[in-house]
Amino acid sequence: MAPAIVLVEPQLGENIGFAARAMGNFGLGDLRLVAPRDGWPNEKACAAAAVAEPIASGAKVFETVAAALADCNYVVAATARPREMVKPVFSPETAAVGLRKRAQSGERCAVMFGGERNGLDNDSIALADAILTAPVDPGCASLSLPQAVLLFSYEWMKGGNPEGLGRITSFDGPAREGLATPGTGPATRASLFGLFDHMEGALDAAGFLRPPEKRPAMVRSIRNMFHRMACTEQDVRTWRGIIAALTRHSAASKG
Amino acid sequence: MAPAIVLVEPQLGENIGFAARAMGNFGLGDLRLVAPRDGWPNEKACAAAAVAEPIASGAKVFETVAAALADCNYVVAATARPREMVKPVFSPETAAVGLRKRAQSGERCAVMFGGERNGLDNDSIALADAILTAPVDPGCASLSLPQAVLLFSYEWMKGGNPEGLGRITSFDGPAREGLATPGTGPATRASLFGLFDHMEGALDAAGFLRPPEKRPAMVRSIRNMFHRMACTEQDVRTWRGIIAALTRHSAASKG
Repeated sequence: MAPAIVLVEPQLGENIGFAARAMGNFGLGDLRLVAPRDGWPNEKACAAAAVAEPIASGAKVFETVAAALADCNYVVAATARPREMVKPVFSPETAAVGLRKRAQSGERCAVMFGGERNGLDNDSIALADAILTAPVDPGCASLSLPQAVLLFSYEWMKGGNPEGLGRITSFDGPAREGLATPGTGPATRASLFGLFDHMEGALDAAGFLRPPEKRPAMVRSIRNMFHRMACTEQDVRTWRGIIAALTRHSAASKG
Repeated sequence: MAPAIVLVEPQLGENIGFAARAMGNFGLGDLRLVAPRDGWPNEKACAAAAVAEPIASGAKVFETVAAALADCNYVVAATARPREMVKPVFSPETAAVGLRKRAQSGERCAVMFGGERNGLDNDSIALADAILTAPVDPGCASLSLPQAVLLFSYEWMKGGNPEGLGRITSFDGPAREGLATPGTGPATRASLFGLFDHMEGALDAAGFLRPPEKRPAMVRSIRNMFHRMACTEQDVRTWRGIIAALTRHSAASKG
């Protein structure tokens, strides 16, 4: 079961909503609030959550940190510095990997974040098993509350080896890393060599590949540009069309 | 040189500020804006940037995408779906690793993000070398503009193998992954075995480790609890104090 996100004494409704949206973007849904400053429900939170509005409106509210954590087996506290606590310290990535293993063993886990002004107090951190701290520029270390929630949520999703990237729509499947070649595919060498013949023939006819002693190096250079382009079959057809059009235009001009 | 972040037709000043803060958190500083809707400078942007206000107020403004990218050698466009483009697709992590290598070779790079409403249009994406897409829940895939900037910025910082985590203050050095043991250190086995003797002696005297045939298993169980606790030297002293206090209290009660 995916970990709960516990916001302790959050102040701005917008930030609660932005945090809910970050959770939704990365497959988390259990949002818990401890004593939100402006009460609950909060219209600004639901508006800021945008597509994740159900996560914001479904947040559970508790009076104390202990009550919010009562059903959890393992709790990580997010803080920008480990304070004077003897506790394991995790980066977002390591925390996410560890929490995924615990979740797979049936443990209910939570990640706890403090309010905007001061973060978690030491008594709240003392109720957690471990500390979560992000790698930041030490001179500009203060993450906003929703940004901190996002980092953990993103690493949670990454650790689940998602099958794709980005949005899936009725006309787009999930994206994958690597060269996207929608509706076409990488060109075969035969297509590419055909293009080379076409191009080099046209350039010879135009008198471009001169003087003869420089021709081999010029040809290699042009071929290498085409290789770096990683042409698809469609690209090869496009280039053949370009060469034919330029050749015709040139012939017509002369005529 | 660290990559520039280019926001194309951003709408809300707050989001420009939040993006600037995310950049500052992770060591980026070159913010470029193409035709921001509400003009520039923008007070809301500078306020939202918080600690990264200098990044927001130092943003460079351009009229066109082409002008904003003119000095760049390599450009990545962030979009939730690769559209009908034949382009390499990178996750934030892969993009950050690749851009770091290019930066180390002296290339000037940029990562380009679209406005809140529709993201980048196809003509802007066609000015980029590659596409950046995050692993998201496909049912809730819409990242906010500052959250999208944060993911790339975070991976950029991670790829630089930062030396520590979190904030550095006058009284805290950088945190590191692993067990934080401020002012103390992991206990030696000798200290721990001394604690075991103390504890087991007190429990024998109190008649807890009975019946005798169950004593070995009870002792192993208690010792294992202490091992899982990963005691520091200070923890061992604390436990010895606890045992002594409870023993005294018990003796006093009986007396």
